[in-house]
Amino acid sequence: MSETKNFTLAVVPGDGIGPEVTTEALKVLDAVAAQHGVTFDRTEYDLGAKRWHATGETLPDAELEEIRKHDAILLGAVGDPSVPSGVLERGLLLKLRFTLDHYVNLRPSKIYPSVGSPLANPGEVDFVVVREGTEGPYVGNGGALRVGTPAEIATEVSVNTAYGVERVVRDAFARAQARPRKKLTLVHKNNVLVHAGHLWKRTVDAVAAEFPEITVDYLHVDAATIFLVTDPSRFDVIVTDNLFGDIITDLAAAISGGIGLAASGNINPDRTAPSMFEPVHGSAPDIAGQQKADPTAAILSASLLLEHLGLTEAAKAIEDAVTADIEERTGAARSTAEIGDAIAKRAAG
Amino acid sequence: MSETKNFTLAVVPGDGIGPEVTTEALKVLDAVAAQHGVTFDRTEYDLGAKRWHATGETLPDAELEEIRKHDAILLGAVGDPSVPSGVLERGLLLKLRFTLDHYVNLRPSKIYPSVGSPLANPGEVDFVVVREGTEGPYVGNGGALRVGTPAEIATEVSVNTAYGVERVVRDAFARAQARPRKKLTLVHKNNVLVHAGHLWKRTVDAVAAEFPEITVDYLHVDAATIFLVTDPSRFDVIVTDNLFGDIITDLAAAISGGIGLAASGNINPDRTAPSMFEPVHGSAPDIAGQQKADPTAAILSASLLLEHLGLTEAAKAIEDAVTADIEERTGAARSTAEIGDAIAKRAAG
Ligand SMILES: CC(C)[C@H](C(=O)O)[C@@H](O)C(=O)O
Ligand SMILES: CC(C)[C@H](C(=O)O)[C@@H](O)C(=O)O
Repeated sequence: MSETKNFTLAVVPGDGIGPEVTTEALKVLDAVAAQHGVTFDRTEYDLGAKRWHATGETLPDAELEEIRKHDAILLGAVGDPSVPSGVLERGLLLKLRFTLDHYVNLRPSKIYPSVGSPLANPGEVDFVVVREGTEGPYVGNGGALRVGTPAEIATEVSVNTAYGVERVVRDAFARAQARPRKKLTLVHKNNVLVHAGHLWKRTVDAVAAEFPEITVDYLHVDAATIFLVTDPSRFDVIVTDNLFGDIITDLAAAISGGIGLAASGNINPDRTAPSMFEPVHGSAPDIAGQQKADPTAAILSASLLLEHLGLTEAAKAIEDAVTADIEERTGAARSTAEIGDAIAKRAAG
Repeated sequence: MSETKNFTLAVVPGDGIGPEVTTEALKVLDAVAAQHGVTFDRTEYDLGAKRWHATGETLPDAELEEIRKHDAILLGAVGDPSVPSGVLERGLLLKLRFTLDHYVNLRPSKIYPSVGSPLANPGEVDFVVVREGTEGPYVGNGGALRVGTPAEIATEVSVNTAYGVERVVRDAFARAQARPRKKLTLVHKNNVLVHAGHLWKRTVDAVAAEFPEITVDYLHVDAATIFLVTDPSRFDVIVTDNLFGDIITDLAAAISGGIGLAASGNINPDRTAPSMFEPVHGSAPDIAGQQKADPTAAILSASLLLEHLGLTEAAKAIEDAVTADIEERTGAARSTAEIGDAIAKRAAG
């Protein structure tokens, strides 16, 4: 006799290819749920471009409070060319990340041997980027004066605190400690952004003292992009600021099989609010609704969600199903749903 | 009978491999000078780590005023681990770029067929990045409070003006107009950095109206890194902000034969002060003084210098010599001086 555990899930399909890939992620979640003695109670939230056009709303506070009551959030993608750039990104996606204190934006990168990399000799790639998620240039602390005139001035302020940097750095060290290679690389630009950069560097140096087994490295962000294409296997855990993390994780996705495979978790490690899982890719409006999107990144994000809920075996079942599916990819075109079906079938065992 | 024209050159060899590669760049400059009826009067400035250790000075104003009197500046590299990160970068390199109003930081990227790219199928790569050089997150407008305490807060302010953005955007459009493909890509992050990003976007849209032949494209910086590894041949002229330009030009160098070949010009297009030419690479202290550095980037920077002084043929002679040298590279190790000698010999014709 086994007990069934129920989890609540807030689902935000969002824009563009978001709904399609989310459908497949949910399909795969359901396929593994039964085997692992869990069920998922889902509430879908209609947020994104359509909602904004209809009501002018991006994420009303009342809805945010509803969402907050769930065990986790699954998000598809946010952003549409019909909406001024930034409105949905700031008003919906970043509002969720910031309000729910998702200070660890976790983005693993792995090269599957069977998937082509644009690199000629990528080597063995298996690293994870711990991107800070609640500070840096993303805080929305900026403004503009005399907009549209020749005297316009626009500022963007990167805000970094010891509080915010230390907690994400600690998380990254703990992750490095749990990995076989035990290596941590701080990526910043402390030769130019000296105030923020030195805070990051000092924090890493201080926390490193508590983790004597970890090899610690520092790279300027520009140099990090070089190594990501010339020697990506040197990386194990990368910890970095919100904007640098945004940039290098897209590059990391590109070198390791493409943005169609890159999953992410916006994690609140203190569990004071639900964590949120989403593919690294955007809403790709050009291919939306055509069943052309690869749902693998969304499906792997669902696996990270299970992991976060402590359902390690179920998470592993999805990961293994994805690996098996990827290994058999022939290059023949499959629809979004066909890929989802194939992975769901494997994941169900 | 031909007339000899004399140009004055301020030379800042700087740190690490800077002096070695600068020696070769000067050797090649001299080799082409005679043929093209020019001479270069050089003054060397002893600036960098050694000077700072000895005197605490990075770039005294009096010396800056001396440097300003020259026709152009040739710089090796700046930065050393024995000096706190940022001291020389901000106090010397960026002080030169900012004070001399180098608002166009020009960084061409080209794949030489014979040079290996880390990309499996790079395609034909020949683009130029026009990186803004006097604004953005590089302005040094930031600070820190309660440094070293758990209550520390550090900020970095990106400052962007219509004045500063428009002039570099105009320069980029003019360059695109002069190139066969006539394509310009703005790279920014206007879905998050909405104030600065929208200023850039509006400026590009406005100037585009005056250049009807140019195809204009926009990419978020994260997406740009993806295309730089999956489809770099799509780029012709990229215009971008100071920090994004820093990041993507290192990546661009990496995919197109490496940082050993990447040249740059810090250009003051209004000629109110001398422009400065330097390799994109850093001071590489780990290999300094060992004749291991590739001087090609410094030599190509000297070619950009000649171009800027209107010595187009001499510039071309260096470029052709470099191309010929690169085409015959066998992978056998040559010293810094040997590479310089070989290119100088070819350039002298
Ligand atoms: C859509 C955008 C706001 C977002 C970001 O910049 O964080 C995306 O690029 C990502 O990486 O999740
Ligand atoms: C050394 C450093 C200050 C510099 C920069 O960030 O501009 C370098 O990386 C470059 O690209 O020229």
